Amino acid sequence: MTNSTAPCPVVRTSDDGLALSRIVAGMWRMGEWNMAPQQRLAFIEQCLELGVSSFDHADIYGGYGVESLFGEALALQPSLRERMQIVSKCGIKLRSPARPAHTIQHYDTTAAHIVASVDNSLKALRTTHLDLLLIHRPDPLMEFDEIAETFEALRAAGKVRHFGVSNFTRHQFECLHRRVPLATNQVEFSPLHLAPMFDETFDGLQDQGVAPMIWSPLAGGRLFGDDAATAPLRAKIRQVAAETGYSFSSVVFAWIMQLPSKPVPLTGSGRIEAIREAVEATQVTLTRQQWFEILRAARGHEVA
Amino acid sequence: MTNSTAPCPVVRTSDDGLALSRIVAGMWRMGEWNMAPQQRLAFIEQCLELGVSSFDHADIYGGYGVESLFGEALALQPSLRERMQIVSKCGIKLRSPARPAHTIQHYDTTAAHIVASVDNSLKALRTTHLDLLLIHRPDPLMEFDEIAETFEALRAAGKVRHFGVSNFTRHQFECLHRRVPLATNQVEFSPLHLAPMFDETFDGLQDQGVAPMIWSPLAGGRLFGDDAATAPLRAKIRQVAAETGYSFSSVVFAWIMQLPSKPVPLTGSGRIEAIREAVEATQVTLTRQQWFEILRAARGHEVA
Amino acid sequence: MTNSTAPCPVVRTSDDGLALSRIVAGMWRMGEWNMAPQQRLAFIEQCLELGVSSFDHADIYGGYGVESLFGEALALQPSLRERMQIVSKCGIKLRSPARPAHTIQHYDTTAAHIVASVDNSLKALRTTHLDLLLIHRPDPLMEFDEIAETFEALRAAGKVRHFGVSNFTRHQFECLHRRVPLATNQVEFSPLHLAPMFDETFDGLQDQGVAPMIWSPLAGGRLFGDDAATAPLRAKIRQVAAETGYSFSSVVFAWIMQLPSKPVPLTGSGRIEAIREAVEATQVTLTRQQWFEILRAARGHEVA
Repeated sequence: MTNSTAPCPVVRTSDDGLALSRIVAGMWRMGEWNMAPQQRLAFIEQCLELGVSSFDHADIYGGYGVESLFGEALALQPSLRERMQIVSKCGIKLRSPARPAHTIQHYDTTAAHIVASVDNSLKALRTTHLDLLLIHRPDPLMEFDEIAETFEALRAAGKVRHFGVSNFTRHQFECLHRRVPLATNQVEFSPLHLAPMFDETFDGLQDQGVAPMIWSPLAGGRLFGDDAATAPLRAKIRQVAAETGYSFSSVVFAWIMQLPSKPVPLTGSGRIEAIREAVEATQVTLTRQQWFEILRAARGHEVA
Repeated sequence: MTNSTAPCPVVRTSDDGLALSRIVAGMWRMGEWNMAPQQRLAFIEQCLELGVSSFDHADIYGGYGVESLFGEALALQPSLRERMQIVSKCGIKLRSPARPAHTIQHYDTTAAHIVASVDNSLKALRTTHLDLLLIHRPDPLMEFDEIAETFEALRAAGKVRHFGVSNFTRHQFECLHRRVPLATNQVEFSPLHLAPMFDETFDGLQDQGVAPMIWSPLAGGRLFGDDAATAPLRAKIRQVAAETGYSFSSVVFAWIMQLPSKPVPLTGSGRIEAIREAVEATQVTLTRQQWFEILRAARGHEVA
Repeated sequence: MTNSTAPCPVVRTSDDGLALSRIVAGMWRMGEWNMAPQQRLAFIEQCLELGVSSFDHADIYGGYGVESLFGEALALQPSLRERMQIVSKCGIKLRSPARPAHTIQHYDTTAAHIVASVDNSLKALRTTHLDLLLIHRPDPLMEFDEIAETFEALRAAGKVRHFGVSNFTRHQFECLHRRVPLATNQVEFSPLHLAPMFDETFDGLQDQGVAPMIWSPLAGGRLFGDDAATAPLRAKIRQVAAETGYSFSSVVFAWIMQLPSKPVPLTGSGRIEAIREAVEATQVTLTRQQWFEILRAARGHEVA
């Protein structure tokens, strides 16, 4: 592993024009990192130095608190804003001390809620616009037309530049994409969660020329555990790491990024070394045989 | 609960122009109601007074007998015909004393059978046209082109005004809808049968601007049973009924009609009070939290 | 059963213009038939006499050996080439003594591999062109655009006349078919493997006007076994065979060919009598009741 990491490349996720860093820094757990504002600022600056310029949020992260933690750090150095892309999400209503009116966890994808949530996010993040807004989960009550019109209105108001969804099926993505161009569908994928590779999600995104974003590419840390069921997979990843001279994590990130839909993975860590390993993965190309070795280990059987 | 129910609204199920009452009276079990012709006529008139002007049939209901029971009642007051919409279906061939040639229950969606079935239905119902004809089940041997051509021929002949399907998947619906505009897909849905909400059926219909019709919205009565597995769901529906001041059944019908695909539910009862409770549901709007409370109780877990 | 079999009809599988014999002779197991070159030639000539003019191959059959066995026979009578259609496949990389570089069974659908595989097939088959080339399995790493461009280049080079896929889902088929017209999707189907009838595969092909090819229509011989679980199905097929005066195999082939997507089944046998029984099936039309009797026996329950 090298210490002079090449900078993270930039990618366009679709024809719609959004540019993200090939690795996106996920802020989901920032509230658990116990960082003072100055430490958060330092972490953000280190990410930017690595070329990781895109930061992934949601209104609900940290019990509706992470956006404010980030905004507080950004306020210490406001000029950083123009060097980064900020992603946020809306549509889930959590039970939370911060939202006492919510008596049950539910979804809300009405125009009124989307607009109010964006306004909250802009205020908490101390910014005038989001680069990308995602509907967090497919809502059984969502009106495709209403969401599309709300996206267009937010774009016209200068509050949000690009739009997407998260955890949508291939068909749900296309229903909305037909009404308003979407820049991504952010889904869970890892060697321990292969569903999007076989349920039309990745095929459909490739077909539409849209790159997925990937949450939990390291399976929320489960890939590093000592679960006997995943031992053969871990051994295989370690073997490929040895063959290529890259870290375990870099191999997993590389394995994911090699898919033809050109996935953009999120990190989840507050350690800059973890971000660096993800960035190093952008330099790795596995052989097809290495790639299928990992797939076989992940599934427990070879391809037909 | 009020006795001065507001009249049932009218809805268009698609751009194709079919107008149905928001609640459709299902005639499936009319043969079990043991009504004399004059009683059947009275029931039909009471439905019409409530604004329930659409009546759902199939050739096979009551062992190929219900259409005749209805037609017999209609013949007592033929002027009612122009105040109602008659829906029927074809495509299933039941084993029945009325059809001794059928040695096995099977499907037939050939032009010859569809046309013959419509002619039988018109004769039994004592009417010159159907307002809506549905293919009852997806047939593994169905030819999309042949069905579409048959529909167009029936329309040209003045025998059927609008067309649809029943129990079709999203993809099957679209295969036929591309060839001839369909006005609906009549499917099973209730808090005890949630599949269409998660298998693309409702998403696809919303996408196409077509409203589903819903059979067994009360789960064929199972919602009123004392099955321990459904006790929490029943308790939740009762709670929402108490909160809103409407009946248990009204809450279920309202919960269904609130979906963005604008479902049109069928009743199944011969009691006019049951029809009235369905009509009252057209006045109810549940809060999002009430709606998701019922969903959670139906699934046994909250949304992700 | 007659000895003067009517010749096998010819079918177009799509608007793209490929014509195949209604029954295709599958060469998968030719390596197991232990035939001398002259015997292979005689078998090919007997197939042609029956009107079975299409021969199905893959680069990998017989451990990368079958194409050469066929080419060796064809070289004894090169004029046969213009009376036949040769189908081959690529995209799977087997572990095999013939391919020592392969350390794991995997897929390769890159332009470089497809072109190299076609060149190998042409050389082994001793022909200048393939009539039809299929991607053998859907590859998680496949690039739809790259495959489409490679197909067009192979067509322009005169090496392959028509293109298709095998074992693709409905959605995968359509992703590629949008980029380059495909002539078929070759899938497994039989009374013991009904999936394509219910998972959108056949519906989608009918919708697109493309006929599937069918591998293992006799379930790889399992239909002839004495498995208790399939005894009712075997009894029903025997009954229909007795009713129609055709052989057991002919009934199964006829049952498949009666589907509205117009499937083109493959044989798998080196016995000319087995090919003849498949060809005889092209003369059979089962009644709908017979057809559904077999479906019911195959599923263990009648249709809804």
